Amino acid sequence: MFRVNENFLQLQSGYLFPEIGRRVQAFAAANPAADIIRMGIGDVTEPLPAKCIEAMHAAIDELGHRETFRGYGPEQGYAFLREAIAEHDYQARGANVAADEIFVSDGSKCDCGNILDILGPGNRIAVCDPVYPVYVDTNVMAGNTNGSIAAARYGGLIYLEMDESNGFDPPLPEQPVDVIYLCFPNNPTGTVASRESLQRWVDYARDHRSLILFDAAYEAYISDPDLPHSIFEIEGAREVAIEFRSFSKTAGFTGVRCAFTVVPRDLHVVTCGGERVSLHSLWYRRHTTKFNGASYPVQRGAAAIYTPEGRRQVRELISGYMQNATTIRQGLLAAGFRCYGGVHAPYVWLKTPDGLSSWDFFDQLLQKCQVVGTPGSGFGAAGEGYFRLSAFNSRQKTAEAVARIAAAYSAVG
Amino acid sequence: MFRVNENFLQLQSGYLFPEIGRRVQAFAAANPAADIIRMGIGDVTEPLPAKCIEAMHAAIDELGHRETFRGYGPEQGYAFLREAIAEHDYQARGANVAADEIFVSDGSKCDCGNILDILGPGNRIAVCDPVYPVYVDTNVMAGNTNGSIAAARYGGLIYLEMDESNGFDPPLPEQPVDVIYLCFPNNPTGTVASRESLQRWVDYARDHRSLILFDAAYEAYISDPDLPHSIFEIEGAREVAIEFRSFSKTAGFTGVRCAFTVVPRDLHVVTCGGERVSLHSLWYRRHTTKFNGASYPVQRGAAAIYTPEGRRQVRELISGYMQNATTIRQGLLAAGFRCYGGVHAPYVWLKTPDGLSSWDFFDQLLQKCQVVGTPGSGFGAAGEGYFRLSAFNSRQKTAEAVARIAAAYSAVG
Repeated sequence: MFRVNENFLQLQSGYLFPEIGRRVQAFAAANPAADIIRMGIGDVTEPLPAKCIEAMHAAIDELGHRETFRGYGPEQGYAFLREAIAEHDYQARGANVAADEIFVSDGSKCDCGNILDILGPGNRIAVCDPVYPVYVDTNVMAGNTNGSIAAARYGGLIYLEMDESNGFDPPLPEQPVDVIYLCFPNNPTGTVASRESLQRWVDYARDHRSLILFDAAYEAYISDPDLPHSIFEIEGAREVAIEFRSFSKTAGFTGVRCAFTVVPRDLHVVTCGGERVSLHSLWYRRHTTKFNGASYPVQRGAAAIYTPEGRRQVRELISGYMQNATTIRQGLLAAGFRCYGGVHAPYVWLKTPDGLSSWDFFDQLLQKCQVVGTPGSGFGAAGEGYFRLSAFNSRQKTAEAVARIAAAYSAVG
Repeated sequence: MFRVNENFLQLQSGYLFPEIGRRVQAFAAANPAADIIRMGIGDVTEPLPAKCIEAMHAAIDELGHRETFRGYGPEQGYAFLREAIAEHDYQARGANVAADEIFVSDGSKCDCGNILDILGPGNRIAVCDPVYPVYVDTNVMAGNTNGSIAAARYGGLIYLEMDESNGFDPPLPEQPVDVIYLCFPNNPTGTVASRESLQRWVDYARDHRSLILFDAAYEAYISDPDLPHSIFEIEGAREVAIEFRSFSKTAGFTGVRCAFTVVPRDLHVVTCGGERVSLHSLWYRRHTTKFNGASYPVQRGAAAIYTPEGRRQVRELISGYMQNATTIRQGLLAAGFRCYGGVHAPYVWLKTPDGLSSWDFFDQLLQKCQVVGTPGSGFGAAGEGYFRLSAFNSRQKTAEAVARIAAAYSAVG
């Protein structure tokens, strides 16, 4: 008889967003006239940059003619895209990353999960709390937890709490860990890491021979030129880190699907048998064996954002979302909320008023204001009592949502 | 210190196609005037059907306007595509498959590899020999082999030989197996399975509580209306099989990337603890956690092939490749080669002349005819002494290649 991966059975049922969808649907059914404003799921709302549209049309036309048709592309991604990434996202910022260290994929969610394929069993895994649930769930599936669950936490994982008390700067682990997930600008808190904070992590990883999995999906939202966009702007990171990036939030590619992972050639590990192995070679083998390249028109669309006109359009797109973030942040602060993030990230993270639980505030906000957000507890135990609002919406809807919240909660503090 | 997945170190280096590329490049460098005809890698050469082009352009335009913009789609794929697949590929052929049993992805190579995520350790895995290397390599990575290698075979896998002696109909395993990979129409041999042959496999799987992983990537090439296109045309298959399909070879999507996997709701397994678990629920969880949907314009392109005009265009595309297959098959037979396949598949599988090894014939064919094919031994030990020629090329180049082979090898038999 065949056997399944029984680690899946340890997963707590009810992923966050389906539950939000269920509650919103029930509310909408009971209140058909309600004008619900959705600031929950972190999905973009504005059209793709015109340069991407243009490049994708051109690529599709190429596929319509025998002379310009292309079949399988390189699994790692076309050089035209990898070279543009290396130049503009890394070398222009002084980060030493070469085009052949970049692996283009169809999404960071895939990459974050698939990276575990090349890691062994027995690693002690640290995640921040609150956390993007995919890091945790994929580790449960891979058998990196021990089967127990207590207070919404999986036994065997090390949770590093980020909250008001530590300024959302996660502490170094008290016990040694082998793999550390970091995400800055942070989802869900919208906070960012300083150069010093990241240097501390890189130094830790070098001292302990740990691996940092750095998720920079929101780097394009950083507004302070001194803040690092990449872990590879930090001294020594090439020996200890892998970085995930995505075009989803940068250029509105959530439905178009394109991302990339950087695995530096300086990243090595010694096997149980004493052999020195390059993670680049392992990921290359994984990527070429279990993936067949991102869609060609999509890669052309992604490359277009590195043209001068494309870069201008992306900056405009992001600036629009960041105006929303400012509207949310300032409106909530004025209404007396304690809130964080929203300066270098499209998320504002607020403390619920009156000690409400995250889900109670979710229900109350939906009832009182017809505004949908994301309960902080959905991102982990340390998110309880917090709430995420997303800047991914139109200017007008964002302003309307903030006005409703201000009216309903004036001077909550 | 973190650990890597050391199973990767057991992988035999040198994937087949890079080695072919290396030899062709060396030949081309030494013979710059040579007009090389490539019939090696199974990649399509003809432009996308016009309906796909049209649908993808329209979808991209939608993404360029706020009113019609779409972000994240359903991870499982849009209903418009899943419903078209269920109706045309399954229900129209009497196979009971519902739209919600279909999981759209960016490629069958990914799906074939990723499916192991939901299977447990300790399964006894059977593959045919010759075999699509991805089935084998992903099992090595997942730890389903025992570390030994002998005669180009991984210890712990069960190899089912397909050759002239059994009419390329793989025998049932002599020892019980838990998971069986089957691919029909077959890559690389181009042979096809009868309804009776597949019924025998389904019965075996029901008797032994085994799982069949059925790869139907080439089903669109079947020319005999009585042959099954899907394992789900076979009585009882819904309880024992998962099917992989792709738009790559059907509609020329190798660079566009779209595929799907069917996991029927009748497929269950009993866990070690006695719990009955649905594989549909496990794959659903895997797919929603580690994947974020196929590209929206790509899904629109795939759906377009189910329109009446799209279906006509796809039939024309396939008929062109099958004329090539006929040209190859008849030309080789006339030249005295023993050859197989090429009737319900775009591959012709030939016995090398004069007892040459597969790689020796590769080199000889390249030297004598400037034709590139794929050495059978690259697909497994039982492929030694065989050679694959692909019909993916233009009419003119195919005819030219066959003429060269006929001239060089007249009456090899």
